[in-house]
Amino acid sequence: MTGIRPGSVTLKDLAAELGLHPSTVSRILHGKADTARGAAAPVTAQRVRDLAKKVGYSPDPQATSLRTRRTHLLGVIVPRLSDLVLAVMYEGIDEAADDANYSTFVMNSRDDTLIQRRKMEIMLSRRVDGLIIGDAHLDGNILDELTERKVPFVLMNRAIAGFASATCDDTLGGALVAQHLWDQGHRDVSIIAGEPYASTAVDRTHGFVSRFRSLGGTIPEGAIVWSRFDTTGGHTAADSILRGTHPRPSAIFAVNDFAAIGAMGAANSHGLHVGRDLAIVGFNDTSLAAQLPIALSSVRSPMLDIGRVAVKLLLGVLNGDAVESVRLAPVLCVRDSSDFTWVAG
Amino acid sequence: MTGIRPGSVTLKDLAAELGLHPSTVSRILHGKADTARGAAAPVTAQRVRDLAKKVGYSPDPQATSLRTRRTHLLGVIVPRLSDLVLAVMYEGIDEAADDANYSTFVMNSRDDTLIQRRKMEIMLSRRVDGLIIGDAHLDGNILDELTERKVPFVLMNRAIAGFASATCDDTLGGALVAQHLWDQGHRDVSIIAGEPYASTAVDRTHGFVSRFRSLGGTIPEGAIVWSRFDTTGGHTAADSILRGTHPRPSAIFAVNDFAAIGAMGAANSHGLHVGRDLAIVGFNDTSLAAQLPIALSSVRSPMLDIGRVAVKLLLGVLNGDAVESVRLAPVLCVRDSSDFTWVAG
Repeated sequence: MTGIRPGSVTLKDLAAELGLHPSTVSRILHGKADTARGAAAPVTAQRVRDLAKKVGYSPDPQATSLRTRRTHLLGVIVPRLSDLVLAVMYEGIDEAADDANYSTFVMNSRDDTLIQRRKMEIMLSRRVDGLIIGDAHLDGNILDELTERKVPFVLMNRAIAGFASATCDDTLGGALVAQHLWDQGHRDVSIIAGEPYASTAVDRTHGFVSRFRSLGGTIPEGAIVWSRFDTTGGHTAADSILRGTHPRPSAIFAVNDFAAIGAMGAANSHGLHVGRDLAIVGFNDTSLAAQLPIALSSVRSPMLDIGRVAVKLLLGVLNGDAVESVRLAPVLCVRDSSDFTWVAG
Repeated sequence: MTGIRPGSVTLKDLAAELGLHPSTVSRILHGKADTARGAAAPVTAQRVRDLAKKVGYSPDPQATSLRTRRTHLLGVIVPRLSDLVLAVMYEGIDEAADDANYSTFVMNSRDDTLIQRRKMEIMLSRRVDGLIIGDAHLDGNILDELTERKVPFVLMNRAIAGFASATCDDTLGGALVAQHLWDQGHRDVSIIAGEPYASTAVDRTHGFVSRFRSLGGTIPEGAIVWSRFDTTGGHTAADSILRGTHPRPSAIFAVNDFAAIGAMGAANSHGLHVGRDLAIVGFNDTSLAAQLPIALSSVRSPMLDIGRVAVKLLLGVLNGDAVESVRLAPVLCVRDSSDFTWVAG
């Protein structure tokens, strides 16, 4: 107990004293039940709680007061509202909040961690009751800090282990696409994988690769191309895939409809007819997919419901309930862009 | 001066005394220079100002105090962020506000006048310095009220005469499409016109019809179909056009890319090949248009700049400057969906 004076103890003091990372201590003391369980071995967790009790640790009083005055305002942070997927999720949030007599504000972070942090501070200075975070990065740094400051929040769209989130079951979604393409005879496939800091990108890619391999397929390293989530990103990635020296794939899985539409444009530029020379499958089944001149196969994720569930989870947190993450089930919608049996030439 | 007690005079009192509509009085007393000029004859305007002076009229003190404490927060109201056009305009707003050290909050009104009103009150209760209104309806009722309450605001996306706005020159955009389709030989054309309460829809349609008629073309009443702005709305409208009894058109102008994509889907369902059997042209040139399997001709509107200009105008209003509406020039991008010469069969 050498370095610690009771009454002015911070999380960092506790962590230093115990030789643990502050985020571990934070998860144990402030996390929800499942967070705390995942953060450390039971013995360690008990040591942390014992020390906190002994030295009279209490969380930031300013942050605590945030929870006592309800403003009935929820803050929502997303990467970009010009990503239709996030815009639809936000509509679900806005509707569910309205039903519960809450209002919502939304801000773009452009997936830039400095902007994320700044927008969160603006939201908090406006006294939101809690945050719905749609742009979490897999490193999770900001979330540990919010947990420490006792800011009520939940994740949406992207999941991080140890935090409550409302998402699609992205791993299953990726697996459904792998099964479909395998069944159609495709053996050389490529993946436009999205941004490596987003669980959506990582889980959809992982789900695809795992299932494809379990069916006996191989996916060489170069067949996975990380990219931006938008049309331009998909075009660039598909272009590099189609220019590649390894055998040209007969199918491309893009983890996002906009990237898939960009890939369709690139296929056109290479003189390939989508749905005959090259199968393309997207993800999210946005309202565009079925209407395209060559209808796009896509994994339907319940975007509106994901937004609605996020509000429900956050209201639970505000209520002091123990909340569990929700993974909503995806459904594969097969259309002309991948509805053909591939026979290797 | 019978009914008016000095000191407690409202706009409605002045209007009743003079036999004018309150909104007319509001525009004369509170409008910017061009608003005031358009609101009434000079003689009437002078009568209003004389009476206001005589009875000691002053605007709502609560509203006035709004302008004295700067929060550096701007409120943005749009119909739906899941409309990519509005989402991109909002990105322009967010970037320009950031450059000027302002933050922005955005809310959806779903184009419902009750929700519009409620969201505005929420924004104002959060002490925004001013509003950017992206969902103005042509009746303009709420805007008169905001003017009366001295709330600083500008319009974006949709224009209303007498209020400062940042928009595309939609009339010119419609005319460019009419000229293009006429030059390609199309004489039987239909228009998916959007929502009749939105200036974007009305001006694009009007610009198209005027130019087409001035070239010698005819557009029968039934050839203009009002619709929702989204993919489903465009599909439904195109379906009704293609089922119609009058001669099937050889070209369709949809006032929005999403509606145009819906029309492409409907054309597919009718067994028509877009770009060979039927020309389709959209509006806004969203990032999707060029990437579609059949690339969509579209009128490029400078969406990001429209958002940026809206911020500039609002900062001008906050500064007490006289601001003028800005109409940004559109450019027609011709692609495969309409790049063929039509010879009547």
